[in-house]
Amino acid sequence: MSIMDLEAILHPRSVAVVGASTNTASWGYSYIHHLIEYGFRGNIYPVHPNYTEVLGIKAYPSIRSIPDTVDFVISCVNAREVPQMVRECGEKGVKGIHLYTARFSETGHKDAADMEQEILRLARSKGIRIIGPNCMGVYHPKVGLSFGYNLPKEPGFLGMSSQTGGGASGFVLLAGLRGVRFSKVISYGNALDFNECDYLDYFVQDDETKVIVQYIEGVKDGRRYFETLKRATAVKPVIVIKGGRGKSGARMTSSHTASLAGSFSAWEAAIKQAGAVSARDFDELIDLAVSFYFLPPLRGNRVGVFAGGGGPSVIAAESCEEAGLEVIPLPQDMRDEMKARGVSIWDWVGNPVDSSIIGGSGMTDMDMMHLMAKHPDFDLLIATINDWVMMTLSTDERFRLSVPAGAQAYLSVKERYTKPFLVAVGERGVTAEQYDDFHWKALAEARSILLKGGLPIYPTIERAARAARKVIDYYKKL
Amino acid sequence: MSIMDLEAILHPRSVAVVGASTNTASWGYSYIHHLIEYGFRGNIYPVHPNYTEVLGIKAYPSIRSIPDTVDFVISCVNAREVPQMVRECGEKGVKGIHLYTARFSETGHKDAADMEQEILRLARSKGIRIIGPNCMGVYHPKVGLSFGYNLPKEPGFLGMSSQTGGGASGFVLLAGLRGVRFSKVISYGNALDFNECDYLDYFVQDDETKVIVQYIEGVKDGRRYFETLKRATAVKPVIVIKGGRGKSGARMTSSHTASLAGSFSAWEAAIKQAGAVSARDFDELIDLAVSFYFLPPLRGNRVGVFAGGGGPSVIAAESCEEAGLEVIPLPQDMRDEMKARGVSIWDWVGNPVDSSIIGGSGMTDMDMMHLMAKHPDFDLLIATINDWVMMTLSTDERFRLSVPAGAQAYLSVKERYTKPFLVAVGERGVTAEQYDDFHWKALAEARSILLKGGLPIYPTIERAARAARKVIDYYKKL
Repeated sequence: MSIMDLEAILHPRSVAVVGASTNTASWGYSYIHHLIEYGFRGNIYPVHPNYTEVLGIKAYPSIRSIPDTVDFVISCVNAREVPQMVRECGEKGVKGIHLYTARFSETGHKDAADMEQEILRLARSKGIRIIGPNCMGVYHPKVGLSFGYNLPKEPGFLGMSSQTGGGASGFVLLAGLRGVRFSKVISYGNALDFNECDYLDYFVQDDETKVIVQYIEGVKDGRRYFETLKRATAVKPVIVIKGGRGKSGARMTSSHTASLAGSFSAWEAAIKQAGAVSARDFDELIDLAVSFYFLPPLRGNRVGVFAGGGGPSVIAAESCEEAGLEVIPLPQDMRDEMKARGVSIWDWVGNPVDSSIIGGSGMTDMDMMHLMAKHPDFDLLIATINDWVMMTLSTDERFRLSVPAGAQAYLSVKERYTKPFLVAVGERGVTAEQYDDFHWKALAEARSILLKGGLPIYPTIERAARAARKVIDYYKKL
Repeated sequence: MSIMDLEAILHPRSVAVVGASTNTASWGYSYIHHLIEYGFRGNIYPVHPNYTEVLGIKAYPSIRSIPDTVDFVISCVNAREVPQMVRECGEKGVKGIHLYTARFSETGHKDAADMEQEILRLARSKGIRIIGPNCMGVYHPKVGLSFGYNLPKEPGFLGMSSQTGGGASGFVLLAGLRGVRFSKVISYGNALDFNECDYLDYFVQDDETKVIVQYIEGVKDGRRYFETLKRATAVKPVIVIKGGRGKSGARMTSSHTASLAGSFSAWEAAIKQAGAVSARDFDELIDLAVSFYFLPPLRGNRVGVFAGGGGPSVIAAESCEEAGLEVIPLPQDMRDEMKARGVSIWDWVGNPVDSSIIGGSGMTDMDMMHLMAKHPDFDLLIATINDWVMMTLSTDERFRLSVPAGAQAYLSVKERYTKPFLVAVGERGVTAEQYDDFHWKALAEARSILLKGGLPIYPTIERAARAARKVIDYYKKL
């Protein structure tokens, strides 16, 4: 029932933005901007008593005065104006309201919390469902709903519900840079009506969603949540990030979304017990999203590592081991094959592969990678575009040619074998003076090649390894 | 004695590159290129029987045929040619040889290891000292020696010795992007003559070096090393990264630099006991280098956190706690001051500071930061340029104005107070299609502003916090 309500709200034929504004710094402006920018094809109704139009669209003084049905309302008015607005929505047959409006229970003030409850009662009496309050609402690129600038316009299959708004939009942006695209993302703040269980149930049955992410600060009903989660993880991977696990976080979540945080260790044990995947911070959340989005199921932990030269290979391989992967020695039959081919270093080269000793051996790095990709002893491969070393050891001209060529060569490994393959491409923070240097542009080009080919990319081998381990654990538990 | 020898080698009046080449892919080309490019002011002598000049500089058929004294020789010839070259160096009064030449003991072959020992005996008999073999040698920007392309030309005060060559040059590049500059970096591979203790002793007494980094795969004499390290850490911070701590690494270090790796846990306990700082991977190594390079001594762990909006603040603050920092509640006298100033959220806002509730409160984020910077209860501050959230929540125009302005405002905090201040600026891997987007350029501009002002920057608050904790531990132990 809940789920059907949510499905209807997510596919509105018309949207009114109450508290619409021509002030570009306001949310009453942004939501209308986004409806236009992301291509919403239904009717858009800006609502404000003082404007006749906003962003070129005719405005109305009130919900009541709109000469048409309204399915979905985005509220940017002050808290005290919400009850009257809900009444008008009731008259108009509105199905759902997203309350961007804040300053309710999260303030810790009793009168604000009481008003929040009053709004819920009012909405229920009119058959209206609520997303929020104190949240950014819906990013649903397929129908043209968005809560942020600069987010991907193409849809994909990751669904997310989130008690943080800024974190949700930031996550969409950053996971988007790494190729992830989204079915629906819902920021729901104080969870007055729909809560974490409703959103989870929705994403489980949603055919457009294959991977689920939840940012949670507190759950309303722990037992129900973990039962819902257990059912969900049997169907689709669910990645959970928990705010409010420490002292400062517990103080803060109450003022952020009025959530009561529990003990983190108990929480994390329960999350794992339910088969979900736990992320510690947003970097790890992005790595996990990328992994579940792009990788086939990982069935084992024996990894082949290509990290460039000696020292970086040593450190990267050891980080893989510390993440719980097994950096196995080269299988004897691979050595035999190299020996038969006349490769001089057949008894010296190992796993991790030190590419600095391969030159002149009668074999290239890529020959080695193909041998490992087809060998059944390796469950997965992790390789890097070793820009930080190459940039210092190659002439500029060699770098310019070899970086995109390297990306292309990695793609051919993906296309030729079924071996799960993770690629590390460093994220480099450069200064204004260095921004136009061709090296960084060549790396951007390599990233484009890898992403277009559907390869998951990570900033470092270490992070790829830690994510891979959690993916392996998920499939092992299934 | 060792130290004096090294000091002399690092300040040569003339350098010969044996195995010089016009092939741009060869090291016999690169080293000559670097001597010119980095501004070496002494004589340069390319040596090769087949060339009359290399890169416009007159070449000689042999060391013997150079009509002048030669202080320092860079050897790019094959291993079997080294003994004869050492003999000629002896005749010529050469002080030091850097053997880029490899394929000695690291191959695991007895004849190669024997030849390595024979070279050492020969060199000792002639009074010649050796850096290497199987290494990249010296980066000493002040005198114009370099082992890589695209490295900083200005000197600084971080000194490094490293058994990995690629890792060393890559580290100089990446730490360089974050503002670190170097006194001397020496890649020494198999450590045939000078070893980790010699380099450490050298950097301890070197007035140009204030922070020391060592990448180590194996130590020749554990007791001597830890005694040397203990003396060193009493004088300057020493950051150590250890290759060969796991199974794969132990296999690999023997083939990389012929080192025998010990148990990592025993190693790490000894490192800490000696007062040194241990880094797990290159990312952490860079964070630690940045921290010791730019921060004043950190004397306590009570941190004020500015991470932007609600969710990101919660997660960042909890990561700070997990790193061992204390995210203390706002001191009561700060609340009293805010109340007296008429700030509406004086009893609601907390630490971490949720900037999404500050607007319209009668106070700005920066007012809050100044209050915390001058308050004695905070030992350090960590703040972020919250690009990933701002880019989605602000209009492009606001982003364009606020990002560099934010960096400038952070600088004013650094200039006005003595409070240690760490800033997180995300490193974003963008694709070719996005490369010219102004958002990323604006961030590069912010980075330039922060670095010019001498602020340490980190990719995330989490990484800043983990580095800060290790700096605090170092000063506590002193």
